[in-house]
Amino acid sequence: MNIHSDIATIDPKKLEKLAEVAVKVGLRLEAGQDLVMTAPLAAIPLVRLITRHAYMAGAGLVTTFYSDEDTTLSRYRHAPDASFDKASGWLYEGMAKAFAGNAARLAIAGDNPMMLAGQDPSKVARANKANSMAYKPALEKISNFDINWNIISYPNPAWAKQVFPELGEQEAIRKLADAIFAASRVDLDDPVAAWTEHNANLRKRSTWLNGERFSALKFTGPGTDVTIGLADDHEWHGGESTAKNGITCNPNIPTEEVFTTPHALKVDGYVSSTKPLSHQGTLIDGIQVKFEGGRIVEAKATKGEEVLNKVLDTDEGARRLGEVALVPHSSPISASGILFYNTLFDENASCHIALGQCYSKCFLDGASLTQDQITAKGGNSSLIHIDWMIGSDKVDIDGVRADGSVTPVMRKGEWA
Amino acid sequence: MNIHSDIATIDPKKLEKLAEVAVKVGLRLEAGQDLVMTAPLAAIPLVRLITRHAYMAGAGLVTTFYSDEDTTLSRYRHAPDASFDKASGWLYEGMAKAFAGNAARLAIAGDNPMMLAGQDPSKVARANKANSMAYKPALEKISNFDINWNIISYPNPAWAKQVFPELGEQEAIRKLADAIFAASRVDLDDPVAAWTEHNANLRKRSTWLNGERFSALKFTGPGTDVTIGLADDHEWHGGESTAKNGITCNPNIPTEEVFTTPHALKVDGYVSSTKPLSHQGTLIDGIQVKFEGGRIVEAKATKGEEVLNKVLDTDEGARRLGEVALVPHSSPISASGILFYNTLFDENASCHIALGQCYSKCFLDGASLTQDQITAKGGNSSLIHIDWMIGSDKVDIDGVRADGSVTPVMRKGEWA
Ligand SMILES: [Zn+2]
Ligand SMILES: [Zn+2]
Ligand SMILES: [Zn+2]
Ligand SMILES: [Zn+2]
Repeated sequence: MNIHSDIATIDPKKLEKLAEVAVKVGLRLEAGQDLVMTAPLAAIPLVRLITRHAYMAGAGLVTTFYSDEDTTLSRYRHAPDASFDKASGWLYEGMAKAFAGNAARLAIAGDNPMMLAGQDPSKVARANKANSMAYKPALEKISNFDINWNIISYPNPAWAKQVFPELGEQEAIRKLADAIFAASRVDLDDPVAAWTEHNANLRKRSTWLNGERFSALKFTGPGTDVTIGLADDHEWHGGESTAKNGITCNPNIPTEEVFTTPHALKVDGYVSSTKPLSHQGTLIDGIQVKFEGGRIVEAKATKGEEVLNKVLDTDEGARRLGEVALVPHSSPISASGILFYNTLFDENASCHIALGQCYSKCFLDGASLTQDQITAKGGNSSLIHIDWMIGSDKVDIDGVRADGSVTPVMRKGEWA
Repeated sequence: MNIHSDIATIDPKKLEKLAEVAVKVGLRLEAGQDLVMTAPLAAIPLVRLITRHAYMAGAGLVTTFYSDEDTTLSRYRHAPDASFDKASGWLYEGMAKAFAGNAARLAIAGDNPMMLAGQDPSKVARANKANSMAYKPALEKISNFDINWNIISYPNPAWAKQVFPELGEQEAIRKLADAIFAASRVDLDDPVAAWTEHNANLRKRSTWLNGERFSALKFTGPGTDVTIGLADDHEWHGGESTAKNGITCNPNIPTEEVFTTPHALKVDGYVSSTKPLSHQGTLIDGIQVKFEGGRIVEAKATKGEEVLNKVLDTDEGARRLGEVALVPHSSPISASGILFYNTLFDENASCHIALGQCYSKCFLDGASLTQDQITAKGGNSSLIHIDWMIGSDKVDIDGVRADGSVTPVMRKGEWA
């Protein structure tokens, strides 16, 4: 790593604005709240700026855990086999305790997307599973919005080289940094005001969709002709969310999507992907699937087909949908033309669907529903949640009501 | 920070040997043990090497927490007043749980010794107190040797500049690195064998002292004429220690001392310090104190006298001794002639005494004693434990037995 030259490459004023947006828009940190942060070591400059802005906003105590590609790879190369069924449960239990005490949570994304590409896939799978199980008590407090949380990105050199392989490292970092700044709206004079306006626009869309109460969305485009039934009592969300501690946060920066829960048993037709998907160090491209009764009964891919079929075999819910999201083709991230190999960005460049687990908050009064009630309304369950992109400027979307009446939702990738 | 240039300055082969010594001598890590490490960010290169060697030794999982001077100073500059009574209790409770699960503990020292010199002393004191109280459950598992543990050092740039203010940063780092390598015996061909021999030498000294059963040590030298009574049933220790998990570790690298518990009520005479002491960002030099019945009744210093007297007023035990330690003047650290401003080094360059808390392990069968029993035997209690140096090549030490017979222990700073 080389922190000096990264800093020289990355616009310091915009990086500081990104830190400010993380604290004031992403977390909307309240005075007296503690903050638990995680970040790759490459993101030290952003961690330092966020920490300063958090204390200026009245943070009680900021605690940061760093991940390190070098030590992670040491584990894969040198640790005994039994290591791959271990996880730091004592640390995650501690984090869960911090969240129970109203600490906010910030994750800085930006790890090398291909970090584990050369490692034994079964060790990767075992380590991921052990970690997911240990992390569950802390993750549930986050995904159930017990507290305000946010994910933001830093242009890690290894990630930048993956996105811009044809450029030198410094130039790649600079271009990725600028793309992150633009997508996060920190290239504007008043990013906080821009986010207020953006949140209002997303709320307008989700409010309209919630009012229409479509029972299905019909997607039509090249290689795509599918009707995606929506779950009973589904609710559309997008932009900011109010956590149970009363704080309204923007959990993802950037975010361009409005999204809801499809009906796990009511998806029929053909879908083709419009962008490649980076999954655990493998690229999956040219996906074509056939749905019958909500279930994928045929799946092909021009690249990574074997991995795709392994993913679909994870469990019964892996062949069914847990999310459908609408993003206009003119979204700033899409307009950049960049493939980020990072779901936080790529899913916000295109309409997408997700295989696997649904979000309980995408139901009316979702926080009070039991798992059985969610299932009865059509909510899908799975160990996975993998978003893939199906939108483009050639895709039309219609909203279909229970009575069969139809309203255009998008035309040629834009809101109708 | 600038990691590239530090690495260019520090001998990579010796740094790797230091990592190996930390794992094989310091911790004697056993296959399957997890490791919890703490380090300043500047020590990333050493953390990575130690992690690799730990996994090669069969570590289950290595988890590292980094401290950062930049974010610590942000807290002092920007955090609200209430922040200074807070600590990450949830993290320390988690660490205590890891130790209860037999995880080993490694601390990399090397923070800037003057980091907090410019900050409000009352905020520093409050933050230290909150942290000490939160850390107590984890620290007790370490100081009671529930598990194997080790402290080792890395030549942080800010520390190097403090030790060698007249040198440029790169040259200062290189010189401090070489001093750490020499003191840690990693400049030798076979450091592990050298540590085996060194541990045997220290054991020979402590075995001899334990056999003599002196009731007091009499120190005589320039400005020093003191009789330090030893606690009833005191036991001398030095070098390696066997933890309750059965693993024999070297908790301090370097270490040159043999040490035991003085009697809190039986110290009489005058003592003068022979080296300056760096305490929480303040230098205290030219200390002269008078003991009566174990208690310091007069204290002067040519530098830092006000801070010294504040320290002595911490609690009743702060005016009494908790440790007496013997280090020959020819010890390699002393021979280097370097003042390290770091107790891990400076206390191993000279005979020293410590104000405050005693070590329960420095009693026969110490692990089974209650606090009342330790007090009855003459063991001191305090919130502080501050070592200061009283040895030189002009100091003689005699061992005095209960019957009044005397045996020379050191002459002109060397074992007699
Ligand atoms: Zn989405
Ligand atoms: Zn998703
Ligand atoms: Zn000592
Ligand atoms: Zn000591």
